[in-house]
Amino acid sequence: MAKRIGKRTLALETQPGVVSYASVVGGKEGAGPLRKGFDEVSLDSYFGQDSWEKAETTMLSRCVDRCIEKAGGLRPGGILGGDLLNQCVSSAFAVKDRAAPYLGLYGACSTMAEGLALAGLLLDGGGFSSLLAFTGSHFCAAERQYRFPLEYGGQRTPSSQWTVTGAGAVLLARDCGGLELTHVTPGRVVDAGITDANNMGAAMAPAACDTILAHFDDTGRDFADYDAVFTGDLGAVGHDILQDMLQKEGLSPGLKYLDCGVLIYDLVTQDVHAGGSGCGCSASVLAAHILPAMERGVWGRVLFAGTGALMSPLSCQQGCSIPGVCHAVSIERRGSYWV
Amino acid sequence: MAKRIGKRTLALETQPGVVSYASVVGGKEGAGPLRKGFDEVSLDSYFGQDSWEKAETTMLSRCVDRCIEKAGGLRPGGILGGDLLNQCVSSAFAVKDRAAPYLGLYGACSTMAEGLALAGLLLDGGGFSSLLAFTGSHFCAAERQYRFPLEYGGQRTPSSQWTVTGAGAVLLARDCGGLELTHVTPGRVVDAGITDANNMGAAMAPAACDTILAHFDDTGRDFADYDAVFTGDLGAVGHDILQDMLQKEGLSPGLKYLDCGVLIYDLVTQDVHAGGSGCGCSASVLAAHILPAMERGVWGRVLFAGTGALMSPLSCQQGCSIPGVCHAVSIERRGSYWV
Repeated sequence: MAKRIGKRTLALETQPGVVSYASVVGGKEGAGPLRKGFDEVSLDSYFGQDSWEKAETTMLSRCVDRCIEKAGGLRPGGILGGDLLNQCVSSAFAVKDRAAPYLGLYGACSTMAEGLALAGLLLDGGGFSSLLAFTGSHFCAAERQYRFPLEYGGQRTPSSQWTVTGAGAVLLARDCGGLELTHVTPGRVVDAGITDANNMGAAMAPAACDTILAHFDDTGRDFADYDAVFTGDLGAVGHDILQDMLQKEGLSPGLKYLDCGVLIYDLVTQDVHAGGSGCGCSASVLAAHILPAMERGVWGRVLFAGTGALMSPLSCQQGCSIPGVCHAVSIERRGSYWV
Repeated sequence: MAKRIGKRTLALETQPGVVSYASVVGGKEGAGPLRKGFDEVSLDSYFGQDSWEKAETTMLSRCVDRCIEKAGGLRPGGILGGDLLNQCVSSAFAVKDRAAPYLGLYGACSTMAEGLALAGLLLDGGGFSSLLAFTGSHFCAAERQYRFPLEYGGQRTPSSQWTVTGAGAVLLARDCGGLELTHVTPGRVVDAGITDANNMGAAMAPAACDTILAHFDDTGRDFADYDAVFTGDLGAVGHDILQDMLQKEGLSPGLKYLDCGVLIYDLVTQDVHAGGSGCGCSASVLAAHILPAMERGVWGRVLFAGTGALMSPLSCQQGCSIPGVCHAVSIERRGSYWV
């Protein structure tokens, strides 16, 4: 049974554990700083398909298969997933005709954190013994849906981010030990009034700040209690905004605050402007970098704060602002902390 | 703690109850057979806004407000919602800057059932004391996104359905009695190979059959144990297909099997062809018809099986088939059955 502590955080009693995780990415991600962590790098951006949307489906499906494979074939009792494409078709198609029930999510780029949060709560609730959370995004499919066809060759602003071609999946189970989910802080929809669709970092930073502060308030923790705190995909611009916001709140993030969108690419040489974004960003960094490093003992306790910008091209064209959301999950290596 | 029974169904131990529900619809729905049940009928299809997408947001927001109002101002500990618009913007915008955390869902037209299922499981899991599930759709916003601009005046096929302009919200809490959620059967993604985007009923019927059969198998129940079984929005064509499928499985649905898409309009006089569809269809019928009738004692035990077609205009253009999904929730009036 989960227990609410403070205003918004839920402490998981059974602390569901990570059985396996997997990531599948494209060539650009495979050439970046995290290249050694991915399970599969596809140099074919079509993933053997004839459209980018079908490529995204194939990438997601392969990632789910890999994750199940790495769990020794353990079939999840349910699957939670979503993506950025209209009507979330790539994730729905990726789980087509599988035996497990599927609960579709839409958390924009926060989908992996939302999936982990829900999986943790549902496992703790007793009905499921294992659940798989997955998500991903594809640069080419996202570009033509959200911005311009690639052929148009539009220029990108300095604050724009590069949608990660990548997928991540995590299989969780009750009482499996190892890396455990201990707390969930679900996010509110926070609107800071940003209307620039090329500055997602600024749009999402206030939501990230809101959730991280709520998590710290509720748990009585702060940066000193974590080895690292990751946001999903604020990129370099959003990272600095959030760093400032946290400092103004009297916190000292120092070098402990990291962003998956900054980590996944080399911002100097890979021409991605402010960094990575997309559902696949935090999902693949979690599966290729954060969880493996935790298993190796680099970090004992991590706060994974997935961030999402809630907009569509149409909502931007209609002059609407871009609210953000951020869901945070606390992950801990069993035995690394004694509370 | 939820308990799995059979292969896929989860029995809710605490049986979370319905505190309040609300519906807000457009003029066409307000002129239909269920006109007396809606909390609000807007004759202005713009809901006072300057675009249909903003109208949808306003409708959803008003519906959430009404539901909270009818619960005597009880603020939900969390909100679950989603819609049909690209990137689910209307539901995200409808909960902007509210105090409760928001978990975005995408279940296409099954979103209300998915929200109820998750809310039931999460409440049973102990972390939340109240949760609100909502969704909706707007005919004009859906038409221009999925099919043609209204101005084009495209002809509709006989099997096509009319997207409901409507929203529904349900506020659930632990230990509140009255109408209770007793079982959840989450759905799998079932692909019957249908490629006709104007025949959603045929695309969703196999998923509905799969989930209803799983629910009956798992619980040992059949139609005799329910006063009514509702699918979300199969419409007249899908209703008859499912009726046939169920009969072939040896079941006798008789007059107990009903479809929200058939109930919401007068199919003879309202020119909606095969009936209603959209997230708002089953959501508003649930809140305006099913739950009130259960409270009045018309039905004691109901299976609410929300159905969704997992597609986008692009996936159809690329020749992909249209898989379906169906999530079922069993709702019971306390004291009406002794098991």
